[in-house]
Amino acid sequence: MNPDQAYTELVRLSREKSVLESCLGLLQWDAEIYMPRSGVGHRGEQMALVAGLAHDRATDPRFDELLGTIEGSALVNDPESPHAVNVRELRRNFDRQRRLPRELVEEWARVTALASQVWADARTNDDFKTFAPWIERIFGLAREKADALGWVGERYDGLLEDYEPGMTTDRISPMFTRLEADLVPLVASLREQSVPPDDILKREFPLDNQRLFIEGVARAVGFDSEGGRLDVSQHPFCSMIGPGDVRIGLRYFPNNFTRGLFALLHECGHALYDQGLDRERYGTPMGDPVSLGIHESQSRLWENYVGRSHGFWRHFYSQLQSSFPDALREVSLEEFRKAVNRVKPGFIRIEADEVTYNLHIMVRFDLERALLAGDLPAADLPGAWSELYERRLGIKPPDDRTGCLQDIHWADGLIAYFPTYTLGNIYAAQLFAAAERAIGPLEESFAAGNFRSLREWLVENVHRHGQRYAAPALIERVTGSPPDPSAMIESLSRRYHGNV
Amino acid sequence: MNPDQAYTELVRLSREKSVLESCLGLLQWDAEIYMPRSGVGHRGEQMALVAGLAHDRATDPRFDELLGTIEGSALVNDPESPHAVNVRELRRNFDRQRRLPRELVEEWARVTALASQVWADARTNDDFKTFAPWIERIFGLAREKADALGWVGERYDGLLEDYEPGMTTDRISPMFTRLEADLVPLVASLREQSVPPDDILKREFPLDNQRLFIEGVARAVGFDSEGGRLDVSQHPFCSMIGPGDVRIGLRYFPNNFTRGLFALLHECGHALYDQGLDRERYGTPMGDPVSLGIHESQSRLWENYVGRSHGFWRHFYSQLQSSFPDALREVSLEEFRKAVNRVKPGFIRIEADEVTYNLHIMVRFDLERALLAGDLPAADLPGAWSELYERRLGIKPPDDRTGCLQDIHWADGLIAYFPTYTLGNIYAAQLFAAAERAIGPLEESFAAGNFRSLREWLVENVHRHGQRYAAPALIERVTGSPPDPSAMIESLSRRYHGNV
Repeated sequence: MNPDQAYTELVRLSREKSVLESCLGLLQWDAEIYMPRSGVGHRGEQMALVAGLAHDRATDPRFDELLGTIEGSALVNDPESPHAVNVRELRRNFDRQRRLPRELVEEWARVTALASQVWADARTNDDFKTFAPWIERIFGLAREKADALGWVGERYDGLLEDYEPGMTTDRISPMFTRLEADLVPLVASLREQSVPPDDILKREFPLDNQRLFIEGVARAVGFDSEGGRLDVSQHPFCSMIGPGDVRIGLRYFPNNFTRGLFALLHECGHALYDQGLDRERYGTPMGDPVSLGIHESQSRLWENYVGRSHGFWRHFYSQLQSSFPDALREVSLEEFRKAVNRVKPGFIRIEADEVTYNLHIMVRFDLERALLAGDLPAADLPGAWSELYERRLGIKPPDDRTGCLQDIHWADGLIAYFPTYTLGNIYAAQLFAAAERAIGPLEESFAAGNFRSLREWLVENVHRHGQRYAAPALIERVTGSPPDPSAMIESLSRRYHGNV
Repeated sequence: MNPDQAYTELVRLSREKSVLESCLGLLQWDAEIYMPRSGVGHRGEQMALVAGLAHDRATDPRFDELLGTIEGSALVNDPESPHAVNVRELRRNFDRQRRLPRELVEEWARVTALASQVWADARTNDDFKTFAPWIERIFGLAREKADALGWVGERYDGLLEDYEPGMTTDRISPMFTRLEADLVPLVASLREQSVPPDDILKREFPLDNQRLFIEGVARAVGFDSEGGRLDVSQHPFCSMIGPGDVRIGLRYFPNNFTRGLFALLHECGHALYDQGLDRERYGTPMGDPVSLGIHESQSRLWENYVGRSHGFWRHFYSQLQSSFPDALREVSLEEFRKAVNRVKPGFIRIEADEVTYNLHIMVRFDLERALLAGDLPAADLPGAWSELYERRLGIKPPDDRTGCLQDIHWADGLIAYFPTYTLGNIYAAQLFAAAERAIGPLEESFAAGNFRSLREWLVENVHRHGQRYAAPALIERVTGSPPDPSAMIESLSRRYHGNV
């Protein structure tokens, strides 16, 4: 087999693996949205079987042989060419998968499946004690996993590489320190001033009108509904089933319109990324999203830099008023905009505003590093959690349910995943600033209902590259600066100091 | 490996194959109901991949080895034991699959995929000429397939065995001849009398109320909605995704309430069979439906023997009147019941009433046998079709669209499938009569809203056996008589002679 033939076969194998994984995507989507209750047992068997088949393919020794035939050939001379990128990334993934002993993979699946159930009960009953041994167990396995995968600076990096390839703890730590130094005083100063009222957002917003309005927003920002759909789900999410099939799940609240709307904008950001990927390269690294941080940057950008902007509401507010005349007839555009830009520390990460959100993440980043290092016994987690919330957000959770039991991530084995949320916020600010430098100020575009120039810029500069550049390199290339929180701090300070 | 171990492994393999096929079921269901338009290309890739994996499993040589270890052992001494049944049926399937050369399987998939598209266009344009060569092609391949699979009496049996194992042409032919002799004069005599009006069924029936009423009927007949769901689809269907997950797709017509209702009862019959199978034995022959004819007998029984009965409407009619006061206020129960039991020959099989339906099937049975035998050139099909419709139904279709182009079956490669519809009707009549002999007359049960005794009798006597007995043996065991159209002729004559 010559390198050309090997490459063709490599792409075929890689696509096949992606198509299998995409079946898993549909099984999961259906389970969230439409599966009848009694179908859960069988669904578990379907998912286990398909996941096993996908794993077999990911570790198929033929990958190794084919890659060996291509590596070093003229096909991959240009490191930025699609051939070279695909070979580089498939090699990286294959080597990582191969380093994990099968027993560890199986034990990991078993333990996290059980731990998720224990976690759900522990949260319901506010009973941290029953969950604590599982934390020990999972972080113990996570240490084994990180060591099997390998790491240079800090063990945490061995896990982070799965979510944000190319990013390391020693790059994240100074960014987070810097953020903390600026955000904690900002939040404190906003607390000293009066928090603008948000009761206008808690009025009666009939669900049918919410749905119509939200569908209109999705269309306006460019969500392709021929190539996707919106459904009602327990938790908001976006799932790419495959090219031409990107699905958003949303929840609507009769007395909280903006919760549904901002979730829509967030998920639309994810969906626009998926819809902006190169369809022809589906199932190969060149057609896949580059990292969780970059994915999150797209959702945060549409949620916060578009959805909370003056321009957005100058365009949509009169339409919103006509959709909900009873709730909003007497509310001015300025009052409304202030209400949706309200900053107030709270206990729950997923309900946090744009400014305090990152402080929630830092707490988790510190704690999971300490747990992984073995410096923090699981039993001490609630105390450490409270202390960090008090230090960073100025509040102490009244119980563990609203404290360290609120997120499913650790129970699911998602360790080193949290920082990608804040990286997403940091990247979003950098990308938005770069977009404005390239296109010009976007305020007037948004006010005129034009979201296309921003979207096309993102497709061109971010989505179409797939995994050509690792996230830090992509950000540097597109914005002229490596990942750096300055743009976010600058934007938040400017926007929120003027908002009280 | 001893026979016990081999049996355990055999069951595991069989289940794995079923679970894979059930993923295909969900991919198909989603494609019919929720998939966005642009997702169709990717869906094709998903289905092709999973179908290929399922086929690999079906022909895995390990089946042969494992079966060989068990066959002849003490494990299968009792031929009606689950062990023996599973071994017998898995052997039958494996040997059939193995007899098909891979090239033929691939050619079959390719040709039928293309033919379905040609058929759809030909039907739209009423253009039989473009479809004719594909008929030749498909029946040519079907001859090869039947010969590869093997047959004794007539080549048609080689194909029929896939849909109705144990049934043969020389058993069907005399039943159909007998049916024709009785039904043709019955239909003619009903035509001479005045057809009762059905305009009361064509009034305005608001869709929301249809849906509510139909959901109530589904609950009443025992459809388990925790283990299934109802959705809107282009064509009515029932799909079992797996144990605890059986889904019905339905279409509602604002000016034709009963079309949706009888489709619901029909699909509920299929669903109750699927829900009545032994969940513990899912994925093995003991937990699988036995044949298409038996499956259809369940749908026909609920549609016609329950849904068109006096008792059913004595129970539901007042509720129906309150759901649709504008349409039905002035209509008596007796008028309504006559309208839903109307017999009138028409061109379209899927819109046919209970009496004429079987005549549609006989036309297809004769023609597909002649096409398979090579006695009828494809070009002569439209003429032969018209002639048989005139002879059996007394009407001649005005064009091929309402004639020989109406069904997708042949384009899809479904040859020898049609007779299972009439076998279903024959079995339904026999089963219903046997149920009444066992439980007592059901008229009063239905009138009291009790559908449970019938359903439980069917679960006990039909569903729970899985594939323990082939369809003809099952019918004989449960009704005391081999498959025989007498019960159906008797029931139709009694019910329809009194209806004019």
